[in-house]
Amino acid sequence: MSTTTSFFIPVQEQIHRVEGLMRSQAEGHNPDLKAALDHLIASGGKRIRPTLTILTGRMLGADEDRAVTLAAAIELLHTATLVHDDLIDGSLLRRGIPTLNSRWSPGATVLTGDFLFARAAKLAADTESVPAISLFATTLGIIVNGEITQLFNSRCRADREEYYQRIYAKTASLFETCTTCAALISPVDQETTDLVRQYGYDIGMAFQIIDDVFDFTSDQSKLGKPVGSDLRQGLITLPTLHFLENHPDDEDAQEIISGDCLYYDEQVGRLVEKIRASDAIASSLVEANNYVDQALEKLQRLPACPERSYLEELTLYITRRNV
Amino acid sequence: MSTTTSFFIPVQEQIHRVEGLMRSQAEGHNPDLKAALDHLIASGGKRIRPTLTILTGRMLGADEDRAVTLAAAIELLHTATLVHDDLIDGSLLRRGIPTLNSRWSPGATVLTGDFLFARAAKLAADTESVPAISLFATTLGIIVNGEITQLFNSRCRADREEYYQRIYAKTASLFETCTTCAALISPVDQETTDLVRQYGYDIGMAFQIIDDVFDFTSDQSKLGKPVGSDLRQGLITLPTLHFLENHPDDEDAQEIISGDCLYYDEQVGRLVEKIRASDAIASSLVEANNYVDQALEKLQRLPACPERSYLEELTLYITRRNV
Repeated sequence: MSTTTSFFIPVQEQIHRVEGLMRSQAEGHNPDLKAALDHLIASGGKRIRPTLTILTGRMLGADEDRAVTLAAAIELLHTATLVHDDLIDGSLLRRGIPTLNSRWSPGATVLTGDFLFARAAKLAADTESVPAISLFATTLGIIVNGEITQLFNSRCRADREEYYQRIYAKTASLFETCTTCAALISPVDQETTDLVRQYGYDIGMAFQIIDDVFDFTSDQSKLGKPVGSDLRQGLITLPTLHFLENHPDDEDAQEIISGDCLYYDEQVGRLVEKIRASDAIASSLVEANNYVDQALEKLQRLPACPERSYLEELTLYITRRNV
Repeated sequence: MSTTTSFFIPVQEQIHRVEGLMRSQAEGHNPDLKAALDHLIASGGKRIRPTLTILTGRMLGADEDRAVTLAAAIELLHTATLVHDDLIDGSLLRRGIPTLNSRWSPGATVLTGDFLFARAAKLAADTESVPAISLFATTLGIIVNGEITQLFNSRCRADREEYYQRIYAKTASLFETCTTCAALISPVDQETTDLVRQYGYDIGMAFQIIDDVFDFTSDQSKLGKPVGSDLRQGLITLPTLHFLENHPDDEDAQEIISGDCLYYDEQVGRLVEKIRASDAIASSLVEANNYVDQALEKLQRLPACPERSYLEELTLYITRRNV
């Protein structure tokens, strides 16, 4: 099993088209929107979601233009949610690049996110698949509902079930939408659609667990924010859950388990260090790898083809990538 | 020609269903979202857009369930835009009722608006008409683009063309979407669709001009904000444009025409009084009535039926309503 990123190569041209389609959404609109969109696209990530969408679509026989349109819709939706997230969190940098809200007023930032939602919805409509459009809208509702729940109800909650629901809403729901919508625009049966839906779910869950691990194991220069910033904001993720379960007698852990937040920087910093040094990291990685194994098992049930091999690579990359 | 509001009666049951459908969008989601949505629906207006959608759909032979779904999608979209507008403007009251942002944090308000956009898009998808879904998304883009343009470029601009573009984006585009989408889910030809699209455009333009007149002619208790608040925020609407054209020598007018804002409350207050007392109000009403006449002319080209008569009433109501 390789850990290369060569799966990006066969979709390079399509990803280029996805970015072009995203960029074109500001055409005929306010020039400031065009500037904002160019900035957001230039500071985009690795385009893992569009890559997943296009490889799945190609594997299942989707029309390439529709798959590119769908991938652009999904990546624009993802971009829109990040614009509002960064505003709400007051984040000034993302991937080391200034966020929109670091330069624009809150009002302009809210409206830019809204505009991106609108154009993402238009791109989804351009796939002309009512089931795909419908799932797309449902998923946006799930993502936003998850954010509201996190805002209102998640602070300092050490609850495993709540954690899985949260990372489903935050990340796995959109990965699931990538693969499911790709199936919905392809000539495949319900069984195949269900299979790739579960595959998307599995890699989405793994992806977010790894992100939550990185928040402890990486360093500030790579993260673009302090190590342990989730915990510093009162957000209990999988490494902390494992630590609490394995060290219930730790005095900082006891405070959290009893439903309190750690209000002192020093105390949070100490707990972050304890978690980094503990087996909680390895236990979390085991969980992520279990999801990866389940994802690979689902792929095995599909006919062998070059795209399936690339998706296997992509799946392994989820847990082996850097931040 | 009557000025009754009896056109609301034949759609009463359907509007009740529209509100039920809007309310149900929070089901299975965070309870705080349900509370927010209940509050927003309870403080809703006269439901002129759903009424227009349902009457147009019934006139053109649309399936009633689909028309109700479409009407709910449009009203929820409208509600979502108001939630973000009130946040951006810092408005604490709408129709005399506390806004969401007067009670909730900016972050929670942004996310609630986003959730409503998502569920509005889902309702639009439920109509299962790709052209209607597509227009719906396009219109959201137009509305938001208009708001961004107003935020960045409209301050103290005395430009008639810019004014018409602004009120199209702000109001007429959604009225146009009500009637056009109703046609798109009906068994009618392109010519009829174009006709009702123009009809929706005309009443939408009239509706916003009347709103802009009310901003001068009504009183603070009815408006829920100071008289002339558009002008106080540097927003030049039709009454001011007429005043500037008819009184270019007025010294306050000269300042605006030269591209300056009126920065002193006293000066703005004086200009508001001059506009109220001038023929600018009557000239603006003539323009609104011209749009109403054009709207009625378009209706005349459709076959006579009870719904057409109700739409005539609705059209007349646009300019004869109170705030």
